[in-house]
Amino acid sequence: MDFPITKIKGGVGAAKGFLTSAVSCGIKNPASDRLDLALIYSDKPCRSAGTFTTNKVKAAPVKVTQSHLKKGSLRAIIANSGNANACTGLQGLHDATAMCEGVAKELGLKKTEIGVCSTGVIGLPMPMVRVESKYEDLVTRLAATQGNHVARAIITSDTHEKEVAISFDMGDHRVRIGGCVKGAGMISPSMATMLCFITTDANLAKECLQKAVQESVEESFNRITIDGDMSTNDSVIVLANGASGMPVARRGRSACRQFRQALGWVMLELAKAVVRDGERVTKFVTVNVKGARTHLDAKKVAEAVCKSALVKSSWNGGDPNWGRIIHAVGYSRARIREELIDIFIGGKAACLGGLQAETPMEQLREVVSHPEFDIDIDLNQGSAVYTMYSSDLSPEYVDFNRSEYAYWKQARKDGLV
Amino acid sequence: MDFPITKIKGGVGAAKGFLTSAVSCGIKNPASDRLDLALIYSDKPCRSAGTFTTNKVKAAPVKVTQSHLKKGSLRAIIANSGNANACTGLQGLHDATAMCEGVAKELGLKKTEIGVCSTGVIGLPMPMVRVESKYEDLVTRLAATQGNHVARAIITSDTHEKEVAISFDMGDHRVRIGGCVKGAGMISPSMATMLCFITTDANLAKECLQKAVQESVEESFNRITIDGDMSTNDSVIVLANGASGMPVARRGRSACRQFRQALGWVMLELAKAVVRDGERVTKFVTVNVKGARTHLDAKKVAEAVCKSALVKSSWNGGDPNWGRIIHAVGYSRARIREELIDIFIGGKAACLGGLQAETPMEQLREVVSHPEFDIDIDLNQGSAVYTMYSSDLSPEYVDFNRSEYAYWKQARKDGLV
Repeated sequence: MDFPITKIKGGVGAAKGFLTSAVSCGIKNPASDRLDLALIYSDKPCRSAGTFTTNKVKAAPVKVTQSHLKKGSLRAIIANSGNANACTGLQGLHDATAMCEGVAKELGLKKTEIGVCSTGVIGLPMPMVRVESKYEDLVTRLAATQGNHVARAIITSDTHEKEVAISFDMGDHRVRIGGCVKGAGMISPSMATMLCFITTDANLAKECLQKAVQESVEESFNRITIDGDMSTNDSVIVLANGASGMPVARRGRSACRQFRQALGWVMLELAKAVVRDGERVTKFVTVNVKGARTHLDAKKVAEAVCKSALVKSSWNGGDPNWGRIIHAVGYSRARIREELIDIFIGGKAACLGGLQAETPMEQLREVVSHPEFDIDIDLNQGSAVYTMYSSDLSPEYVDFNRSEYAYWKQARKDGLV
Repeated sequence: MDFPITKIKGGVGAAKGFLTSAVSCGIKNPASDRLDLALIYSDKPCRSAGTFTTNKVKAAPVKVTQSHLKKGSLRAIIANSGNANACTGLQGLHDATAMCEGVAKELGLKKTEIGVCSTGVIGLPMPMVRVESKYEDLVTRLAATQGNHVARAIITSDTHEKEVAISFDMGDHRVRIGGCVKGAGMISPSMATMLCFITTDANLAKECLQKAVQESVEESFNRITIDGDMSTNDSVIVLANGASGMPVARRGRSACRQFRQALGWVMLELAKAVVRDGERVTKFVTVNVKGARTHLDAKKVAEAVCKSALVKSSWNGGDPNWGRIIHAVGYSRARIREELIDIFIGGKAACLGGLQAETPMEQLREVVSHPEFDIDIDLNQGSAVYTMYSSDLSPEYVDFNRSEYAYWKQARKDGLV
């Protein structure tokens, strides 16, 4: 970062002019009052940009929000957890659109100014009766409360809410960026199973914002992996309302580059928080690949290592198993030469020139016993680099994901299936 | 199969003219007498063919055997378990070559007539002192014993030996094919972490044998997955000695096609046995994709589903979760249309046209509660098909693979590292 930033309190409601609310409508669990429906709203028009799952099976809210973004800029986002509204056909599209219409009417906006996001179980119809009764309540409760309740309302298997906010100066103006993120399983490049909402009071031209969002996602959410799966609902949406009073930053200008840096920092913080909070995760591992012939080769190596069930199992066991790492490098389809590969674990040589290094195994074990460590892989073939952030794979992860039958039983009880 | 085959007793030693032996040399565990070194030998010259790992990090014995195959035909194979002789540099190549030289001398053959295979831990030097002292013993013990001890000597984390043998008539001659396989983890297309040795007394031209082996591997070992990892040591080697007395079968002739069918059957049996014996596996799942635009599209869909940690976890939990299946179809990069996808579980519709089907969930749960079931995915876009064989992913798999440290400690004690 070329300029100072300050972490400030709050998340998606921390920027000027953004109001938020969250309620419980019983989608996650009809018997509890856990927050599961949230609203983010700007009191003035915004520029907006988003990136979405590359899965060809896209949830209805993703399709609706993408269509609204094409027609203009969003000014509000409604989001629910507990039901993904995915694989729900035409009814799902109707329901997602109805959620936009419902809050638009209460807010006095056009439905195309509303984004909609859902996360939860796939294939069940949205319990619209529960949702519809809450539009008025959501709008009435809107307040400048920094947004923590939004962060809580969107989580599913996450163990805690994840949010971050910063302030920094752009010229003479103090600017804020804040956001929250949800996601703990089904996390893979490109894009995690994940919802991320970011708001800022910076004043940005549409092209500046769009490029900053795309580049920042590429260097953050597209570089994390927990289980190698990719969801139908992934969405990152950024709203910028210009309430800081700064003059508009246009693409190619230094102000736009400055914002891009700050947004990148916020997204990377949120992306790392997703990995750290991965389902039953005990390790946060940064895998740095260097010395590759091309960016793509470096990326292939990082992804192969970060997605290998055997490598991830060994991290869970605190085992500094470089043999499994090099075998993943070997099947990555990158251009590599075994006899040139160096692997460092926590900065200590584990493998040099494709052979076991002299570092005592106990020293490497000590590194891997920590909750966070780095793996550096030098292919010694060029100058391209790539970094990914990964977790271990635990027996508890598998156990946790063995069955969603409880959801179905509940849905049956609710008369939804 | 267009002709009758008979399952017969034995495995890699079932064909006429093949002798086998196995001993314990303490590589797997110096304190036990578990078999870990085996020899397969034909009492007359053979035609031979093999396919090997596509991992760019190749174990030394793979390189040596490939080189010997290029120079002519193999007549014997020496194989050990406990140490993979992978990532062992020049020393590894010397050791693998020395193993061939050692048995060649005892057998009165050229070293290039010997194949060598190793499986076990990566990155540790071969304990050659233990191996060298056993060449004479191996050769002295050679006998027509059907080969079960070879099947036992090559296994590592497998729970039991895996072998099959058949006989059938080619013209007026009775022909036998028998083989054994090792592999339980690190299993992925293309090629499992796996050693497979097959012998036959059929009389085959080199080109006929080579093509039959390549095609049979493509339809068997390249279609199984347990954990999505691919080993440095995978090898399938087939020896044909013509001892049945049949006239030579040349490529393109009906006799060659008949042999190809029979070999394909044997390999598929062995490949399925590997999945069924996967590390801590509780389910054997056949995934049939049809209606794809191209073979490659069908393959991409099958691989995405069979490799998804979330899908495999749900199978472990007996959860007929079609939502996770369709989300894997969606990120497979195959050309699909969500609204055309049908998914059947055990022949019962779970998803029709991308939406939940009417089959009661309890009926689908009943199917998935069985140890073996089929998933049929119809993309309804063309006529291409692809079948893969997969396992579930269990908490016990991860736990089992958490640490190989015990191996290292033993190696330290043995003075190897």
